[in-house]
Amino acid sequence: MHQLLARSVMRRLVSSSTRNRFMWSLSSPPSAAVIVWKEVGKPSSESVVMMSGQKLGFCGQWWRMMSSASEPPTKNSTSTVAGKEGDKEAKRSRASVERMEGEDEVAVSSYWGISRPKITKQDGSVWPWNCFMPWETYQADLSIDLSKHHLPKTLLDKVAYWTVKLLRIPTDLFFKKRYGCRAMMLETVAGVPGMVGGMLLHLRSLRKFEQSGGWIKALLEEAENERMHLMTMVELVQPKWYERLLVIAVQGAFFNFYFVLYLLSPKLAHRVVGYLEEEAIHSYTLYLNDIDRGEIENVPAPAIAIDYWRLPKDATLKDVVTVIRADEAHHRDVNHFASDIHYQGKRLQEAAAPIGYH
Amino acid sequence: MHQLLARSVMRRLVSSSTRNRFMWSLSSPPSAAVIVWKEVGKPSSESVVMMSGQKLGFCGQWWRMMSSASEPPTKNSTSTVAGKEGDKEAKRSRASVERMEGEDEVAVSSYWGISRPKITKQDGSVWPWNCFMPWETYQADLSIDLSKHHLPKTLLDKVAYWTVKLLRIPTDLFFKKRYGCRAMMLETVAGVPGMVGGMLLHLRSLRKFEQSGGWIKALLEEAENERMHLMTMVELVQPKWYERLLVIAVQGAFFNFYFVLYLLSPKLAHRVVGYLEEEAIHSYTLYLNDIDRGEIENVPAPAIAIDYWRLPKDATLKDVVTVIRADEAHHRDVNHFASDIHYQGKRLQEAAAPIGYH
Repeated sequence: MHQLLARSVMRRLVSSSTRNRFMWSLSSPPSAAVIVWKEVGKPSSESVVMMSGQKLGFCGQWWRMMSSASEPPTKNSTSTVAGKEGDKEAKRSRASVERMEGEDEVAVSSYWGISRPKITKQDGSVWPWNCFMPWETYQADLSIDLSKHHLPKTLLDKVAYWTVKLLRIPTDLFFKKRYGCRAMMLETVAGVPGMVGGMLLHLRSLRKFEQSGGWIKALLEEAENERMHLMTMVELVQPKWYERLLVIAVQGAFFNFYFVLYLLSPKLAHRVVGYLEEEAIHSYTLYLNDIDRGEIENVPAPAIAIDYWRLPKDATLKDVVTVIRADEAHHRDVNHFASDIHYQGKRLQEAAAPIGYH
Repeated sequence: MHQLLARSVMRRLVSSSTRNRFMWSLSSPPSAAVIVWKEVGKPSSESVVMMSGQKLGFCGQWWRMMSSASEPPTKNSTSTVAGKEGDKEAKRSRASVERMEGEDEVAVSSYWGISRPKITKQDGSVWPWNCFMPWETYQADLSIDLSKHHLPKTLLDKVAYWTVKLLRIPTDLFFKKRYGCRAMMLETVAGVPGMVGGMLLHLRSLRKFEQSGGWIKALLEEAENERMHLMTMVELVQPKWYERLLVIAVQGAFFNFYFVLYLLSPKLAHRVVGYLEEEAIHSYTLYLNDIDRGEIENVPAPAIAIDYWRLPKDATLKDVVTVIRADEAHHRDVNHFASDIHYQGKRLQEAAAPIGYH
C-alpha cells in the first residue's frame, strides 16, 4: 500500500509539476486563519491569502491537488516515470500522512485519492481534529441575555411550557446534582431536534422546488453545535454502560416523537425546543454555581473545547460550561423565533434565518 | 409593529452605545469577502477584517448586535428613554430592514430580535439570497477527471452498478432528450442520500459518544450542493403539476429505501450513489452536447447560479451545466471513497472526511 501511495505521489509530481503545494496554518485564536502557499522547491517564497468567502474554493483546490496525488494506478499510470526527486517527495508526503492519520488511514485515503490536506496551527502543531475545521471555530457571545423568557400566552405555548416543566421532574430525580453526567446525557438528546428540523425542511425544499430562507443551515448548525457540546462533555465524564443503553432508548423514542411533532406542528416543535433550551440554561447555571462553591472540581478544559471555542490554553471547566450555556441561549432565541414566525401564519423561509448565530 | 421595532431599536441605541455597527461587503468574485466595520457616527473610519476562521465568530457578533436591536419590550424595557437620535436611528434601521426583507419580515424578525444583518456585494447592491451566504460560494473545480470509473469487482459492487444501470432505462424512456427537465427532476432525488447519510452518522455520533471524522459535514455539504443544483435548474425549467406529484411520490419511496439501505449496508449505499453520480456526469455531458449543437438554447445563467459558483455576469446555461457536472464528479469521488473505507472493514471516522471538496 505504501508502494501504491509512493507511486501515486510520484505520479502527482509528474502530472502536476506546474501546480503549487501549500499548507494551511491557523493563527492563534481569535485572529483569522490564513492559507500560506508554498511553491514547489521554493519554501521561502510565500504569499498569504485570505480564506473568507473563498474558503471552500480553497479546500476545493486543495482536495483537487490531493486527489491527483493518490489516484489508484490505472492502465495509464505514469508511475514508472518517477525519479529520485519523486522518491524523496513520496517519502516526505507519506511521512506527513502518517503523522496526520496513522498507518491505517494511509491505506484508506489512497483508494479514491481524497486524502486530507495538512492543516497546522500557527505554532506548527498539526490541527488535531477531523470533526471540525479551523473555520468552524468561534468565540461564544457571553453578553447574551440569559434570563430572556418567552411568556406562554396561547394554549399551544402553555402545552409546550408545561411539557418541558414536567419532563424536568424525572430528569432532576434521575441525575440529582450530577450536572456533568446530566449535561452529557441531555446533549445526546439536544442534538436531535436541529437535525430533524433541518432534514424535514431540506426534503420539503426538494419536494416543493422552493427555497429554505437559510433555515435548513441554521437548524443543522444548531444540531452540530449541540453535538460538539456532547463531544466536549464526554471528555470530562465517561458514560456508564447503563447510561449508554439509556441514551439509545431515549434517542429512539425522542427522534420519532420529534419527527412526528415537527410534521404535525413545527410551531409547537420549535416552542418546545425553545423552552428546553431555557431549562438547559438553568441547569448549566446550577452547574456553574457548584463549580464556584468548589463542590465540583474546576478541572482544566478539554483540548477539543479550547480549539472549538477559541478558549485560552489555561481555560477550565467553568469557562467551558459558560460558553456552552451561551450557546444554549442562542438556540433558545432561534427556536422561539422560528415558532413566532409560524405563529404569524408565515413559513420560515419568509424570514431570513439566523445563520452563524452564536 | 413598526413602533415596537422603533422602540426596540432605540433601546439598542441606549443599551449598546459603546458598540460598533458594521456592514459586510462581498468583493467581486472570486476574491475574498471582507467585513468593513463602521464606527457609529464615523462612517469614514473603516478597517477591513479577514473573515476566514472567524467567519462564524463575526456572524455571532453580528447577530448579537442585531439581537439587542430588536428584543421585544419587557417590563424592564428602556424604550421610553430614547430621544431624537433614537428616532433617526430607528427610521434608518427600519428602512434598511424593509429593503432587505419587505414589510412582512419587519414584523416577523422583530419578535425574538434575530434580524438579518445587511449583506451587500461590493457594487453596493444587497446580497439577494437568504438561502446561501457569500462565504458558502465557491468556484467549481473544472479540472477534475470526468471519466474516472470505479470498476465493480465484488458482488456488492456489481449489485450497485447494475441497479443504477437498470434505473437508467425508465429514466431515459421518461425524459428522452429533455435534459433540463431530467436534471431538475433527478436533483430532487440527488439531494436525499447526503441528508440521510449525514443524519444517520449524526445520530450515531450522539448515540455512541464518538466522533464522526467530519463525515457528517461532508455528506450534508453534498446534500446542500445538490439542493442548490435544483434551485438553479428550477429557474430554467418550471415543473408541471404531474412532475410535482411524481417528485413527491419518488422522494417518499427513495428516502425510505435509502434510509433502510444505509442502515443495512452503508458500503452498498455509498457505492450506489457513486455510480448514480457517474450516470449524472454522463447525462450532463449529453446535455452539454445538445447545447453545443444548438438543439438546446444556451440561455443566460440564472442569477442564483452566478452568485453561488462565482460565475461571470455573462455566464450562460452551458457554464452552469459545466460546473454542476464538476460538482457531481466530486460527489462521485466522495461516495466511492466512503464505500472503499467500509470495504476495508473500517468506520468512516477512521479516515478524514473530504470537507469542502468541490
